[in-house]
Amino acid sequence: MANERLHRQIEFIREIDRLKQIFRQTYLLDESRKENDAEHSWHLAVMVMILHEYAEGDIDPARVMKMVLLHDIVEIDAGDTYCYDDKGRESQEEREKAAADRIFAILPADQGAEFRNIWDEFEAGETPDARFAAVLDRLQPLIHNHGTGGRAWREHGVVSEKIRERNTAMKKGSEKLWQLADELIEDSIHRGYLEK
Amino acid sequence: MANERLHRQIEFIREIDRLKQIFRQTYLLDESRKENDAEHSWHLAVMVMILHEYAEGDIDPARVMKMVLLHDIVEIDAGDTYCYDDKGRESQEEREKAAADRIFAILPADQGAEFRNIWDEFEAGETPDARFAAVLDRLQPLIHNHGTGGRAWREHGVVSEKIRERNTAMKKGSEKLWQLADELIEDSIHRGYLEK
Repeated sequence: MANERLHRQIEFIREIDRLKQIFRQTYLLDESRKENDAEHSWHLAVMVMILHEYAEGDIDPARVMKMVLLHDIVEIDAGDTYCYDDKGRESQEEREKAAADRIFAILPADQGAEFRNIWDEFEAGETPDARFAAVLDRLQPLIHNHGTGGRAWREHGVVSEKIRERNTAMKKGSEKLWQLADELIEDSIHRGYLEK
Repeated sequence: MANERLHRQIEFIREIDRLKQIFRQTYLLDESRKENDAEHSWHLAVMVMILHEYAEGDIDPARVMKMVLLHDIVEIDAGDTYCYDDKGRESQEEREKAAADRIFAILPADQGAEFRNIWDEFEAGETPDARFAAVLDRLQPLIHNHGTGGRAWREHGVVSEKIRERNTAMKKGSEKLWQLADELIEDSIHRGYLEK
């Protein structure tokens, strides 16, 4: 390979191929199988392009796109932790930080630092960009659950109160999309996809 | 749903979920299965973040990201056409244009026009952004073929001359990454993954 920098960049590109094998609890809309983190991240990035007009505060859509493209890469080592798995969530932060340390270090130092910075910002959830990224990360599985008769919710015995509790945080990132989420939850209860 | 605009946006987001079921000829690096278009598009978008420094001419990395995120959406209707399938490629343009007409029209008119514009630019391949996007679209499967003992090449009886012919166009988008592609091809011949 031509040089050390390019070699590390290609190594990272090879490494992250593994994200395509990290499966989430959410089903594809045709219900044929669960979706994986790479597909989910792609879906969110396109959602940034479409829905950024609804963000609260000043956001940089290009940075939010980067954020959602990278946000799950740590799950290559840490695995997917279902958002309603309280036990799994206890150790999640530690597992994901260790993963970030290892994986982003494959890149040349400057890019490793840039990527880590973007991921840390997403995790902290304190900027308009990070808040909007989190909105999409919550909205997408909601759309899928609503579109699949609440399949993942039913498999995990999730009730509407739990979902609302988790989704309240969306309000800070997008009032409009939080309202949409609320409508999807109401409609899911109405249709019997979700217990009240 | 709150209003017509948001309704169309969410419809489009639901529609493109089908890209996760369009499979390509390229295998994942662990060789467990072929990859799909959504995963491939995600991979290319992260590659833009990492490799944009090697582009020829002035590029806008954020626009290239959008381009690679959208470039395969037409395959929801048109299917994946293997790049060495000469017969399939004859009708490809027509099939993909019809798909673009249908799919991008799901969006509100302004966004449908924006997305179509980005896709048309990619297809025309005449701007530095489009050329660089095409470089990544060729480089990623090369990395995967090289990393899987040339599996997709062997399954389709593809020889090195064909690959070089197709990859010559990379030079205009990135001299450096074209050189890397050439090294991967040479190494693949050397290792017996690819017929000379």
